[in-house]
Amino acid sequence: MMTAVEPSVLNVLQRFGIVRAATMRLIEPLTPEDLMVQSSPDASPVKWHLAHTSWFFETFVLREFLAGYQAFHRDFHWLFNSYYNALGEMPEKKLRSSFSRPPVDTILAYRVHVDSAIARLLESGSVPDDALRRIVLGLEHEQQHQELIATDVKHALFTNPLHPAYIESKTSDAGESIAPPVEWVSFGGGLTQIGLDLDPADVKAFAFDNETPRHSVFLVPYSLSNRLVTCAEYLAFIEQNGYARPELWLSEGWAKMRDEGWEAPLYWGRDKSTKSGWSVYTMHGMIPLEELSETAVCHLSFFEADAYARWAGCRLPTEFEWEHAASTVPSTAGNFIESHLLHTSTAPSGVGLKQIFGDTWEWTSSGYTGYPGYKPLPGALGEYNGKFMSSQVILRGGSCVTPASHIRPTYRNFFPPATRWQFSGLRLAR
Amino acid sequence: MMTAVEPSVLNVLQRFGIVRAATMRLIEPLTPEDLMVQSSPDASPVKWHLAHTSWFFETFVLREFLAGYQAFHRDFHWLFNSYYNALGEMPEKKLRSSFSRPPVDTILAYRVHVDSAIARLLESGSVPDDALRRIVLGLEHEQQHQELIATDVKHALFTNPLHPAYIESKTSDAGESIAPPVEWVSFGGGLTQIGLDLDPADVKAFAFDNETPRHSVFLVPYSLSNRLVTCAEYLAFIEQNGYARPELWLSEGWAKMRDEGWEAPLYWGRDKSTKSGWSVYTMHGMIPLEELSETAVCHLSFFEADAYARWAGCRLPTEFEWEHAASTVPSTAGNFIESHLLHTSTAPSGVGLKQIFGDTWEWTSSGYTGYPGYKPLPGALGEYNGKFMSSQVILRGGSCVTPASHIRPTYRNFFPPATRWQFSGLRLAR
Amino acid sequence: MMTAVEPSVLNVLQRFGIVRAATMRLIEPLTPEDLMVQSSPDASPVKWHLAHTSWFFETFVLREFLAGYQAFHRDFHWLFNSYYNALGEMPEKKLRSSFSRPPVDTILAYRVHVDSAIARLLESGSVPDDALRRIVLGLEHEQQHQELIATDVKHALFTNPLHPAYIESKTSDAGESIAPPVEWVSFGGGLTQIGLDLDPADVKAFAFDNETPRHSVFLVPYSLSNRLVTCAEYLAFIEQNGYARPELWLSEGWAKMRDEGWEAPLYWGRDKSTKSGWSVYTMHGMIPLEELSETAVCHLSFFEADAYARWAGCRLPTEFEWEHAASTVPSTAGNFIESHLLHTSTAPSGVGLKQIFGDTWEWTSSGYTGYPGYKPLPGALGEYNGKFMSSQVILRGGSCVTPASHIRPTYRNFFPPATRWQFSGLRLAR
Amino acid sequence: MMTAVEPSVLNVLQRFGIVRAATMRLIEPLTPEDLMVQSSPDASPVKWHLAHTSWFFETFVLREFLAGYQAFHRDFHWLFNSYYNALGEMPEKKLRSSFSRPPVDTILAYRVHVDSAIARLLESGSVPDDALRRIVLGLEHEQQHQELIATDVKHALFTNPLHPAYIESKTSDAGESIAPPVEWVSFGGGLTQIGLDLDPADVKAFAFDNETPRHSVFLVPYSLSNRLVTCAEYLAFIEQNGYARPELWLSEGWAKMRDEGWEAPLYWGRDKSTKSGWSVYTMHGMIPLEELSETAVCHLSFFEADAYARWAGCRLPTEFEWEHAASTVPSTAGNFIESHLLHTSTAPSGVGLKQIFGDTWEWTSSGYTGYPGYKPLPGALGEYNGKFMSSQVILRGGSCVTPASHIRPTYRNFFPPATRWQFSGLRLAR
Repeated sequence: MMTAVEPSVLNVLQRFGIVRAATMRLIEPLTPEDLMVQSSPDASPVKWHLAHTSWFFETFVLREFLAGYQAFHRDFHWLFNSYYNALGEMPEKKLRSSFSRPPVDTILAYRVHVDSAIARLLESGSVPDDALRRIVLGLEHEQQHQELIATDVKHALFTNPLHPAYIESKTSDAGESIAPPVEWVSFGGGLTQIGLDLDPADVKAFAFDNETPRHSVFLVPYSLSNRLVTCAEYLAFIEQNGYARPELWLSEGWAKMRDEGWEAPLYWGRDKSTKSGWSVYTMHGMIPLEELSETAVCHLSFFEADAYARWAGCRLPTEFEWEHAASTVPSTAGNFIESHLLHTSTAPSGVGLKQIFGDTWEWTSSGYTGYPGYKPLPGALGEYNGKFMSSQVILRGGSCVTPASHIRPTYRNFFPPATRWQFSGLRLAR
Repeated sequence: MMTAVEPSVLNVLQRFGIVRAATMRLIEPLTPEDLMVQSSPDASPVKWHLAHTSWFFETFVLREFLAGYQAFHRDFHWLFNSYYNALGEMPEKKLRSSFSRPPVDTILAYRVHVDSAIARLLESGSVPDDALRRIVLGLEHEQQHQELIATDVKHALFTNPLHPAYIESKTSDAGESIAPPVEWVSFGGGLTQIGLDLDPADVKAFAFDNETPRHSVFLVPYSLSNRLVTCAEYLAFIEQNGYARPELWLSEGWAKMRDEGWEAPLYWGRDKSTKSGWSVYTMHGMIPLEELSETAVCHLSFFEADAYARWAGCRLPTEFEWEHAASTVPSTAGNFIESHLLHTSTAPSGVGLKQIFGDTWEWTSSGYTGYPGYKPLPGALGEYNGKFMSSQVILRGGSCVTPASHIRPTYRNFFPPATRWQFSGLRLAR
Repeated sequence: MMTAVEPSVLNVLQRFGIVRAATMRLIEPLTPEDLMVQSSPDASPVKWHLAHTSWFFETFVLREFLAGYQAFHRDFHWLFNSYYNALGEMPEKKLRSSFSRPPVDTILAYRVHVDSAIARLLESGSVPDDALRRIVLGLEHEQQHQELIATDVKHALFTNPLHPAYIESKTSDAGESIAPPVEWVSFGGGLTQIGLDLDPADVKAFAFDNETPRHSVFLVPYSLSNRLVTCAEYLAFIEQNGYARPELWLSEGWAKMRDEGWEAPLYWGRDKSTKSGWSVYTMHGMIPLEELSETAVCHLSFFEADAYARWAGCRLPTEFEWEHAASTVPSTAGNFIESHLLHTSTAPSGVGLKQIFGDTWEWTSSGYTGYPGYKPLPGALGEYNGKFMSSQVILRGGSCVTPASHIRPTYRNFFPPATRWQFSGLRLAR
Repeated sequence: MMTAVEPSVLNVLQRFGIVRAATMRLIEPLTPEDLMVQSSPDASPVKWHLAHTSWFFETFVLREFLAGYQAFHRDFHWLFNSYYNALGEMPEKKLRSSFSRPPVDTILAYRVHVDSAIARLLESGSVPDDALRRIVLGLEHEQQHQELIATDVKHALFTNPLHPAYIESKTSDAGESIAPPVEWVSFGGGLTQIGLDLDPADVKAFAFDNETPRHSVFLVPYSLSNRLVTCAEYLAFIEQNGYARPELWLSEGWAKMRDEGWEAPLYWGRDKSTKSGWSVYTMHGMIPLEELSETAVCHLSFFEADAYARWAGCRLPTEFEWEHAASTVPSTAGNFIESHLLHTSTAPSGVGLKQIFGDTWEWTSSGYTGYPGYKPLPGALGEYNGKFMSSQVILRGGSCVTPASHIRPTYRNFFPPATRWQFSGLRLAR
């Protein structure tokens, strides 16, 4: 039967199988009860992620492009809508933890139903280009939710007073080595091209609308540190009263930090039983900070990253500086979710930019806005990115829970500046 | 072996078996996922109730009275503490929905472990009276949580946007009959005895500390309505703008009602598809109000009950008036959880006080304070009741989700006046 | 002309002059700017009190009983309504500090306008009894606001970072003496009469509706301490970790105290420059605690008073115990606002109950509810007291800022249990 | 004496006199009570502005540069600090309305004291360049507070339930004319220079640190509308359900708008007595919208400006597009505070860019960040601008309450995107 399918469609079908299976692999260590936890208003239960990612294909592909498609359940169309106002009303986000029904078995059946219908569409021999593009978008969307599943599960398990591990086995490569000193990589500045334009003829090519259009930006000469800031370096900031010196902080960050009682990155806790006085919650449970001290520091808010940079006599890069630099580095190498490490790696040695992709999202100093001539996708999908362009800050490069095939130099992630539950760290600029 | 057990101990053992089994029967219609839901800060996940009721026996009986008792899990002692500060720190209440671990299977094993140890203690042939008293207290405690399980499950399932039923089968006895008009039962007033004193020699006798000591109260002559207010009667209050007339409301209630947007009892929703224009969520799903109109109205706050009474030209009874009247009625008859109706019954006819026990908790006009000479239990158990004696209002008589053997005329329930998720209604006084 | 006025009317006219003048004397130390401050949502600017007390006479007396009365300003009728919903809409309480217009001069002219019209009515030779009763009520109302002016001004000036004094001169009688130990006064219990009934024929007789009707209450034998708790005694409670021992506190109080960061009564601040380590803000500015240690402790919430009593092995009296005891003491003696001390007096010696009236309001253990057969006044004035009968606690006896002629044994004051800006302290019972 | 003063110093002295006098002229219509009002947490009482602007000269000029300077009052140094953490603790902003003491007379004496000392310093014959620069900064600072005084007074008087006017006389030029249709002015794009660099030798030259350094930005070709959006145009947006269409709004703005119940610009209120159905509060009191319909719409949040632009098929300009365009227009012409109109002017006709300066601040699409190489001023003054560079949006061009000499093409104002009490409107771009 496969012989009837043309290569580009076959390629999408294969990718569909791989991405959907990766989601299922992520939940293997989890029980149906784990899938129910919503530990903060920013997070969602994993079960909801499983349903919503299927809903996305059903809503934007199957209902539009598969003739005679029968919805799996008449209520799922509004039940698993996340934030697309154009599709009508939806449940409040905070209610997601009340979705004990439908049970997870039904959600898994929903996934199979959708998988099968997508396969039917792809194998039908006449797939419109727009349908293909939507499926590719759906896969990128699913990869984003894979990252969110890892992020939300980490927070959910940490919130449990017993702090259980996601997976017990730990593949630490930390050892006793000390990270080599930071080296600086210089860039000459001038006019550079930022973002990209998609070739309308290439249905498999993908970028989010917020990465377009490609346009010119003028850069002043600058340098970037060759690697991410480590836990040991960040600990020095803490020990030198970094959280008590207002001159290091943006005014908004200073107020937030004091309101929330921050004194270290999220997941760090004081622990008299360890040499460093700190333990860190990871996907493998609590680990003494001294065992992680040469790994990249993670779970910082923008405000903490910015304050650290100021303390270090440096600054954060703009997203344009970062992208210009990153375009010289292959995006396929890095510590991604596929490494199963699920935390940051040890600071590397060697010349040139390291850890650009994977490990941690890197806070930039750039607010999230549209590029010149930016146009959201038409219809409900226009709500995917564009409507969030206020009060958010750009992060770049992906993290240790990003799928490797999901990231690229032009990729723009964005979160409010106080966000800490993401795998977010920093690279210095000057 | 049973032959060695003396009758009073055997009686406790039998009661232990019955009460513990009743809890398990309550959760039969629920999935492990259902057991996770905490739909409001007042409520707890059912799973937590299952663990906490076992924790109570472990903490107050087994750790103190069973030589060589091995705790089931070293962390459960603080993990499932509800509010006993004297026992040390405990998790925040709002974190209870993050308890995906331990899984429900472990919680059920915990119950079996505790059950077996209690049986061992009771069958040991030498049970101290204090241990027996604690077990009896633990059973009353468990019955309170059975009611909370029903209450919390109702709220949890209602919060689910699909509004699933707890049990589909519905045993409605509503029919088309119209409730007979209210009749008034008069009481002469004078000095009366309120509360009770426990005979220290009778280990099985039970009352909560807040029901003691028995003391004199002087009552002015009064009358009580012979039955509870019905949904139809309450609908008239709504339709005559009861929620828009400030002169009917206590100032605090008026503010609360407007802040929260109340326009009917909890679980009532406007529904154009029904004759009455309203549907009501019950344990059996959504039901048109017209099918329930002659049943007792339920899920009112104190403020609504008080406003209704004022609108009707009456008032709420004091807890002393209520108790004096109730002492003439057998507490074993009524619509309790054992009826499996799980909602209120139709207004009865006939002479004399009806629906005194069961159906709905009845709001009184009495604030919750200690009786003259009130002494809390010694130690941590002193926190059971006494520390809640501020800003709460007394309710009397039990509800349709109260176990029949749990209620008595002197029983004092208490909740903040804005509480609506309890099965709470009203009887008029004048 | 005065000859035409009958004695009982003349008496009201004289009292009117005295009470209205007392309000003006209270504001003498204050600037127009001081009169603008609203330092908490519970408080009001003094300027508003000046307007509202005049509004009360205009609304409830002049508009109803003085033929041809011309309102001073067409907007004042709604502008200076406090909480009478029956009279229509009113500004939000929090907006009172935005009333820079009308200026204070206009408010003072408003007072004169109202004073003159009241005099005209009283001297008209034909004053209906109902009008007289309303004027008497208006004077009691004004005296309540005199106390509020003192209370609110104290909070307003304290909130100013410079902590200015209300009046600089200080009439301290504190000295170095140590308060004599508490003595206990015993009462035999039994049936007693509480509250009072007004003689409808005596237009000058006055009580608030919540003091009626007179009714029987049965009391168990009890004792009261002969004087109020002192600052030195309360300091011992603080120093013995009273604010860190949950077993001493009601649950609601424990949560409130920790949320708000209470560690001492309101107006106490840690001060290393004093011997005791504390300073206390008074109407005369900051004073070292050691100079006040034998005076009655003041500005406690109900929760603190209750916790102190528990720590001392005692309890708070019920309002009925208090009234029964107070009925044996003349209510005209005490430290009232007329003493110009404006803080509490030193613990007295001698036998019998002391400090029953004046010094501080005494928290009781009684919630605020209506007496059996309680009926609010008809019309808008029914909102004066009755609608506040939930979640409030009774205080008795008046304070050092209560006018002497305003208090009596049956007087019931009420505030939410967390209230601290009132002059509130405690007397022990057992 | 003046003869001893060199011309550049004399120029500063003259400017000092003019600017300080302008502040005094602003408060002429206000009473001491008006000066006390703080009607929102964003605003300050005018009295505080009067003190703080003098504090600025005392702190940053007199204490550093005038030998033997005696502070006016020992507490003012911390009392009137706004947000400079480097100078130590300061009162909470919300306490500013409790500053009834010091009275306004003292504040005015403080101004005279500072004025006199500044004159003494300037006439001393040896003024360091740094002192001159600080005085110039202080004058710009004072002009910013002049605008804030107008803005805060408008809000304060509007909050008063009587809505009094700031000045009664109204100089409306509105008439019946209809605004000419928008025309578009095109710009070619390419590399342009943004910001400016100050000549260190020119002590009188002034710009805020956030306008520096001058740097290159690449612009894509764009067009700007020749004038501001009018009230009539904005009314069409309202009437075509602009506030009910989520697709027009940023997600954050949609949530905010619904939370706050916005349905029109701040100061617009529904009014059945007017032809348009709306009245607008202005500095001259309430005015029917129809009389203002051709004036520029004002008091919009960024979210409303952005939604309007989307509805109109356009967008907001970037701050770079705006500055590039504005650099072609003289900044001295416009409707500024000196016009005494105190509201926006009628849409002009004629070719070319109009209303670039004055009338309303124009929301741009640019978040507030530092320019490449941005360096804050050293010391406490570094907190002036830099620490606010998060979650704020750039506005350009000044408003009808901006002093004419205060504005320039490179001037960057910034506020959080939900801000509405500023005189903020919009110009369309495409």
